[in-house]
Amino acid sequence: MPAPIDFWFDFSSPYGYVAAERIDEVAARHGRSVNWRPILLGPIFKAVGTAPLATLPIKGEYAKRDFARMARHHKVPFRLPERFPVGTQAAARAFYLIADADPARARDFAKRTYRAYFAEGRDIADPAVVMELVAASGADAAAIAGPLKADAVKERVRAEVDAAMKAGVFGSPYFVVDGEPFWGVDRLPLLDEWLRAGGW
Amino acid sequence: MPAPIDFWFDFSSPYGYVAAERIDEVAARHGRSVNWRPILLGPIFKAVGTAPLATLPIKGEYAKRDFARMARHHKVPFRLPERFPVGTQAAARAFYLIADADPARARDFAKRTYRAYFAEGRDIADPAVVMELVAASGADAAAIAGPLKADAVKERVRAEVDAAMKAGVFGSPYFVVDGEPFWGVDRLPLLDEWLRAGGW
Repeated sequence: MPAPIDFWFDFSSPYGYVAAERIDEVAARHGRSVNWRPILLGPIFKAVGTAPLATLPIKGEYAKRDFARMARHHKVPFRLPERFPVGTQAAARAFYLIADADPARARDFAKRTYRAYFAEGRDIADPAVVMELVAASGADAAAIAGPLKADAVKERVRAEVDAAMKAGVFGSPYFVVDGEPFWGVDRLPLLDEWLRAGGW
Repeated sequence: MPAPIDFWFDFSSPYGYVAAERIDEVAARHGRSVNWRPILLGPIFKAVGTAPLATLPIKGEYAKRDFARMARHHKVPFRLPERFPVGTQAAARAFYLIADADPARARDFAKRTYRAYFAEGRDIADPAVVMELVAASGADAAAIAGPLKADAVKERVRAEVDAAMKAGVFGSPYFVVDGEPFWGVDRLPLLDEWLRAGGW
């Protein structure tokens, strides 16, 4: 059984959203599974000494234009949210709470959350919105509401962010397969090539 | 006659090199010409507040790996030069001196210069190497040697860098067509799409 593809992403990342709509089919073509791992880019950007793309001078304006056409290129509905970027702690925590019981359901939650933010303009920084999405994914919302505020899941997300940094992750989406790193939805063709050839 | 594609690049940019090997065929497919415009990223990075990709912590190591596989993806020979990045003033100046007399020859010079640096490991920061490449492109090297050191061509390159900044250029390669900007060799598929559809 070949190793899964690690898929690191932040729920506030437009390119991560587009990648989330495409990565499963790329992986399936090559008999790979995908290990979805939401993280928080805030502490990572701080460690690397950078900032969210959209907030950078000049590059930020370009990026906003590019988000939309990259989504169009991949035939994914997209509208830049009014509040952007936002904190995604609640969404990341909910993801891991669902994933511990049911990884497939957590993936469904992740896709719903991304679409809610980037296609429907919902405010996914709002824990109430996140709880709605938890329920919509079919998870037991009542059972998750408590743990979502507890320290254990905060620690869990922090551990994932640490693991990401150890793996060299500095942006979203970021893929690692068989030790080979791929940064950006624009590297999906290279990832596809790598998987087809089994290396370079 | 549709407007040409502005192709901004720095001779020390690996992604610019790969783009230089591909842009003419993309443009030709859609009946467009390409306006090759070498610039110096140094002053642009200074204005934008960034630094050469390969010198950035974490991202730099990733980038070096990515240069090579992006070249492979486009079937372009590539070897990261020992001295990298280097100053490209002499190469940019020579380009414009050739281009004033013969744009097609200047394009040939540009491709030779990129290959000399990124495929053959020649030091294109060395004016003697640049003069060799001028001669190899069939330009009148004796007639160019003098003007290459004069103020006029320095001003000319400076003016191109200013024009690039006014056009919003913040990296290499950077394409602008019909007012639409595309940054990076990884945006060639989007540029191709744009040209095919005549807009979005």
